[in-house]
Amino acid sequence: METTMTHRVSRTRFLRAASLVLTLSFAGCAPPGAHRTTLSVIPNPLSAKVSEGPAFDASLPLRITYSDGDSAAAAAGRVLSDLIGNTRATMPHVEPANPDSTSRSIAFRRAAKDQTIGSEGYRIAVSESTITVDAAGPAGFFYAVQTLRQLMPPLVEHEAAYVKPLPIPQVTIDDRPTFEWRGLMLDVARHFLPATDVKRFIDLMALYKMNRLHLHLSDDQGWRIEIPSRPRLTEHGSQSQVGGKGGGFYTVSEYEDIVRYAADRFIVVVPEIDMPGHTNSALASYPELNCDGQKRELYEGTNVGFSSVCPSKEETFVFIDDVIGDIAAMTPGPYFHVGGDEVQTLTESEYIQFIERVQRIVERHGKRLVGWDEVSFANLDSGSRVQLWRPLWPASGDDAALDSSRAAAAAALKRRVERSAANGVEFILSPADRIYLDMKYHSSTVIGLSWAGISNVRTSYDWNPDDIFGQIPRKAIAGVEGTLWSESFATVHDFEYMAFPRLAGVAELGWSDPERRDWPSYRGRLSKHAARWQALGVNYYRSPLVDWDD
Amino acid sequence: METTMTHRVSRTRFLRAASLVLTLSFAGCAPPGAHRTTLSVIPNPLSAKVSEGPAFDASLPLRITYSDGDSAAAAAGRVLSDLIGNTRATMPHVEPANPDSTSRSIAFRRAAKDQTIGSEGYRIAVSESTITVDAAGPAGFFYAVQTLRQLMPPLVEHEAAYVKPLPIPQVTIDDRPTFEWRGLMLDVARHFLPATDVKRFIDLMALYKMNRLHLHLSDDQGWRIEIPSRPRLTEHGSQSQVGGKGGGFYTVSEYEDIVRYAADRFIVVVPEIDMPGHTNSALASYPELNCDGQKRELYEGTNVGFSSVCPSKEETFVFIDDVIGDIAAMTPGPYFHVGGDEVQTLTESEYIQFIERVQRIVERHGKRLVGWDEVSFANLDSGSRVQLWRPLWPASGDDAALDSSRAAAAAALKRRVERSAANGVEFILSPADRIYLDMKYHSSTVIGLSWAGISNVRTSYDWNPDDIFGQIPRKAIAGVEGTLWSESFATVHDFEYMAFPRLAGVAELGWSDPERRDWPSYRGRLSKHAARWQALGVNYYRSPLVDWDD
Repeated sequence: METTMTHRVSRTRFLRAASLVLTLSFAGCAPPGAHRTTLSVIPNPLSAKVSEGPAFDASLPLRITYSDGDSAAAAAGRVLSDLIGNTRATMPHVEPANPDSTSRSIAFRRAAKDQTIGSEGYRIAVSESTITVDAAGPAGFFYAVQTLRQLMPPLVEHEAAYVKPLPIPQVTIDDRPTFEWRGLMLDVARHFLPATDVKRFIDLMALYKMNRLHLHLSDDQGWRIEIPSRPRLTEHGSQSQVGGKGGGFYTVSEYEDIVRYAADRFIVVVPEIDMPGHTNSALASYPELNCDGQKRELYEGTNVGFSSVCPSKEETFVFIDDVIGDIAAMTPGPYFHVGGDEVQTLTESEYIQFIERVQRIVERHGKRLVGWDEVSFANLDSGSRVQLWRPLWPASGDDAALDSSRAAAAAALKRRVERSAANGVEFILSPADRIYLDMKYHSSTVIGLSWAGISNVRTSYDWNPDDIFGQIPRKAIAGVEGTLWSESFATVHDFEYMAFPRLAGVAELGWSDPERRDWPSYRGRLSKHAARWQALGVNYYRSPLVDWDD
Repeated sequence: METTMTHRVSRTRFLRAASLVLTLSFAGCAPPGAHRTTLSVIPNPLSAKVSEGPAFDASLPLRITYSDGDSAAAAAGRVLSDLIGNTRATMPHVEPANPDSTSRSIAFRRAAKDQTIGSEGYRIAVSESTITVDAAGPAGFFYAVQTLRQLMPPLVEHEAAYVKPLPIPQVTIDDRPTFEWRGLMLDVARHFLPATDVKRFIDLMALYKMNRLHLHLSDDQGWRIEIPSRPRLTEHGSQSQVGGKGGGFYTVSEYEDIVRYAADRFIVVVPEIDMPGHTNSALASYPELNCDGQKRELYEGTNVGFSSVCPSKEETFVFIDDVIGDIAAMTPGPYFHVGGDEVQTLTESEYIQFIERVQRIVERHGKRLVGWDEVSFANLDSGSRVQLWRPLWPASGDDAALDSSRAAAAAALKRRVERSAANGVEFILSPADRIYLDMKYHSSTVIGLSWAGISNVRTSYDWNPDDIFGQIPRKAIAGVEGTLWSESFATVHDFEYMAFPRLAGVAELGWSDPERRDWPSYRGRLSKHAARWQALGVNYYRSPLVDWDD
């Protein structure tokens, strides 16, 4: 047994020795983080002033405090404690602030809500022994935690690791978002994404301070949400997807769980039921929605524009009322997205009447209508929102005919946008040639489409939402939203590959002040995020435009 | 509506145009795959002769055939059809061979089982219009499919994609494995890995023709499998893990599902219940297993060697009989791994008596004992297997004391190995300094340990199992097994990061002839696998030792 003993002991000794070496190299050299004068936070904060003093080490004993009775501050403290706890033997204790205490602490404090800080803004001040976080609302505290998270090394993302230093550089950060709407759309209709995968995306959105999750819950190829009053939508209409393998749907309780999970991360779920087109899965489930009363077959292809519910039958609006009513009842957020895109089988007047009637139904159920930009043909109410999706820049290359048709379309769209803006409508920007994240990164990208062009990491990031329609006052721009249409891909790994790195750019376009956005700065900061994505297991595209630092 | 119409149509037109361009560029240029004279198959096949003629394009119409009545050939054909179907509108039809047909086909044909081909070997011959696959057994057909898979471009791994060419170069391959045992161990005890994640690893093992999944199902920190006769093991003993968050266990039906899923991929599950040490989770669940009759507390740390069931109490062996009996009943494979490592609290004679008695229990339940190399202190029966786990090479650097103790330990182990080999025992090689895949890749690797040294992609691969103990006839070496001990990591993403790329090297060590293994060849082939891992969403370490081609 002697041999066994020797090796047994030496293994244990090695473990101890390894952690000792780490501690020593950390304590013995230059102060941790002292060299780190540039931050890699995405989205770039409004202002950040770095000092060169020793870093705050979150792996050493500390308390996390909140003003007594402030449950939002306490909740944010627990999020931070969980995160730090990943790489500590014990999580930091979260407790009410005690003014007499002199121990190392991270203090969450309620600030007055004024013009400067806003409901999502925050201020962080880091010294060697103390961090203070001031915010006026729950979201501000949460976003401050996300910033602290990105100030710590990527190893903090591992759910288990031996104790390691967690330096946070001395810095003062003042931050708040530029736009209210910082969204991502997941097309779970063309290929279904299980609830656990949706929750993974919610986690990844939170890291980048995104706050709108738009779920494209129905399309020709499948219906993805249980509607208690219309059971055949899921019994039958959910059973297909592109290519025919799989399908699926969220039960009411799964959807409600997604909504809660998102809300805990300050993300509002925006459900979309696309209509009057993109409705084959409904037309296959309820024959009375077809003008000819004949039910359609389930569809597994990728064509668009061929389907429509019958705009001249009352059954159609009874159905729509049922669907919107059921979904509104399970959705606390204020929005209901009605799609409205790519309709080929209705006249303009039929289309306009349809959208205006549906707008009334949405409002009767207490929600605000959101629709793809075609809905701007209709008279929209103040409070409704239009999502601009068309490519807005001239195509590169030699397709002159396309360029001219694109320019004409853009001009017509612009007129409609101006009219809607005058009515108090706000706009969500999703220009397909920039932030349709299902576009290929490069002509050789295996999955993804390219109808709106190739969208590399720079193209996708390097534009200014303010420049799209100079005539529209900035306050009519609600924000930006990236989309992941899933005709050409299926698994969460594929969704991740198309989303990263570009989703981080969408987040920065939505959050950061134009003065704080430029490609060289973004590229440098982005290069540090690969290590974080690997710690999180994110399947990202290693763009050659970025000099990855990992 | 005109504008809407224009864009709607152009989107559809673009989709069509994109697929047209792809088809043209494929048909119009050099024959697909003609330039591809080097293969990137891992493990390297025994022989491969490439011809320069036009490739077989598996995306074009083809039939997959099998000798009528040969269900194993038909099953392999369906695996291949599913794979090709990922990137085709329709999956190729799988049907009995028809000698009169002249259409393009991939034919699975039963070969005589002789010395050359063996039960796992196969022959593949690819021409422009036909592929033939000859194998003597079901596993051979399955492994031939894995080779064809690696001959196709990585895009075949995506579950959805528009139709794309799938060139398979003209080649004749003869292949069979060097070693019978090509294993991976998952430590699901220190951090629990849900069944879906285990199945993901089974899929990844299959890609590399691995065939033994060793599950480390119990340790001080948790008990991970339901034992119907001993319910408190999971009611209580499963509720902890390293760091204290989480825990979990497989129900009988989940375990049986894992076993079936593995068997469908020709992988045998080897369950391990570690004893007499590494048993704190059992000692916390059943007090009578302790010599003092006092139940232990659940343990969330990472020390080893402190626990043992009481070797002098009959209750201990009743318990062991219950556990081995229940697991044997749900495990069709012939092995039961009893651990046996790192015991500090027993005398040598107590330990030997314990192992020999447990060996009899294992055999009474119809299984063969496998144990870590400490079990070689005992008299082992022919058919039992010993898993060598210690570091076997001198440590680099200046730890001379360790080197000498390591050398002494190695010499003592070698004597025991020789004695066991003379008894007909076979050996599974898991040298910790080479294929303990939880060792860090580099001193800066955030997760992982380093007590056995740093194990980079080359170190891990570049050694010869035949050289370990020159005195042992090669036939006493059953094979190799990589291990993923999970003290320092938690999620499937972490497990993947530590496994890839090194697991591919373990597979090649187990499968490929020493004459077909060398670092430059392996490094070149490995560089092509990153794109495949990205398509599969595998979180891999991008080693700077490899010039990744993606």
